Amino acid sequence: MKSSWQFGLPEEESFGFAQAVEVRGLIHVSGQVGADETGRPADVEGQMRIAYRRIAQILDQAGATMSDVVDETIFVTDLGAASRVAKAIRNEAYGGTPVVASTFIGVAAIGNPRASVPLLVEIKCTAMRAE
Amino acid sequence: MKSSWQFGLPEEESFGFAQAVEVRGLIHVSGQVGADETGRPADVEGQMRIAYRRIAQILDQAGATMSDVVDETIFVTDLGAASRVAKAIRNEAYGGTPVVASTFIGVAAIGNPRASVPLLVEIKCTAMRAE
Amino acid sequence: MKSSWQFGLPEEESFGFAQAVEVRGLIHVSGQVGADETGRPADVEGQMRIAYRRIAQILDQAGATMSDVVDETIFVTDLGAASRVAKAIRNEAYGGTPVVASTFIGVAAIGNPRASVPLLVEIKCTAMRAE
Repeated sequence: MKSSWQFGLPEEESFGFAQAVEVRGLIHVSGQVGADETGRPADVEGQMRIAYRRIAQILDQAGATMSDVVDETIFVTDLGAASRVAKAIRNEAYGGTPVVASTFIGVAAIGNPRASVPLLVEIKCTAMRAE
Repeated sequence: MKSSWQFGLPEEESFGFAQAVEVRGLIHVSGQVGADETGRPADVEGQMRIAYRRIAQILDQAGATMSDVVDETIFVTDLGAASRVAKAIRNEAYGGTPVVASTFIGVAAIGNPRASVPLLVEIKCTAMRAE
Repeated sequence: MKSSWQFGLPEEESFGFAQAVEVRGLIHVSGQVGADETGRPADVEGQMRIAYRRIAQILDQAGATMSDVVDETIFVTDLGAASRVAKAIRNEAYGGTPVVASTFIGVAAIGNPRASVPLLVEIKCTAMRAE
C-alpha cells in the first residue's frame, strides 16, 4: 500500500510527482531545493537551510521526523562553498550530529541555470520508520 | 535471498551489473538510458520515452509494474529541455499522474560525451512490491 | 532502531555524518571516495579500488559483505576512463561478477576541484541483509 504527500505546489502538477512516497515504512523524499514561499536566498547557506526545512515539513506531514532519515544525497553547484557551511546547517536541521549516511556531489546545474537567482543545492533523502 | 534480472545486453557483461536486483520486496533498477535496440533518438523526448520503456520492461521481468515505483532520480544533460517534455512523457509512462518521489538533476555527461548521438537522460528508480 | 558506523575520520566530525546507517536490515553506505590513509592515487583505477575497499570495510564493521550490496551509484569525473577499468576492478571488489543494480554518472566535481590530486570517483551503495 503506497502513501504519498505533496505540498500543493504548481510544479507537483506540472512535472507530476509526490514530495514523499512510503511503502512498508520506507519513505522516499523527492529532492528538495533551496527555495520556498519565503524566498530564494542567493547563498548556499540560506538555500541549504530551506532545503532541510522542506524535508522536515514533508516528513512531518508523513508523521516522521529528521531522526528517521537514514540516507541523504546532497547535490550542490559549488562543493567548496557548501562544505564551509554544511556542519552548522546540518546540526541545526537534525537537532545535533546527524546519524545519517551522506553523499555530497557537485553537479552542473540544479533547476534552470539561467534563473536570476540560481538554485545552489538540492537534497534527496530516505527515511525509515522505527519498528 | 537476492533476485536479479538482465536484458542480455553486451554492457551487462562488459561492465558487470544487473538491470534490477531485489531483496525482500525492494527492487533496485539500474539507471536506464535513452537508447535501446530500436535506436537512440537525438532529442530528450524520444530518449526519455525509451528510458521509461526500459524500466517498465525490466520491472515486468521482475513481475512488477510502474505502479510499484516509489522513487526515481532523473539525470539529464539539459534541465530546460527535459522539463518541457517531462509531464507528457511521465504521464504516459506511469499511465496517469505518477505517485513517485522524484529528483531531477543536471549532470555533466551520461555515457560517452563524444558519441555521435550523445545520451541526454538516464533514469534510476526503486520499486517496492505491495505487501 | 537505527545502527550506524564510522571510520573515525576527521571529516565525519567536521561534516557530521555516518559512513553507514541501518534500519531493519537495509544498510545505506555514504558515498566512498578514492582516497584513504594509504593515499590518493592519481588514476581512476587506483581510486576505484580504494573506494570499493572502503565500502567493504564499513560493511564488514556492520557485519555485512559485498554480496549484500543491492544497488550502487558510481559518480565519476571521466566516464570514458572509468569505463575502461570498471570491469576488472568491480570483479575484484565483488569477488566475481557483481549481482548489483548499478548507475554510472559523470559529474562536474567530487570533493575539492582545486585539490592537487583531484578525486575522480565516489561510490554510494545500499546493502540489504539476507533474511
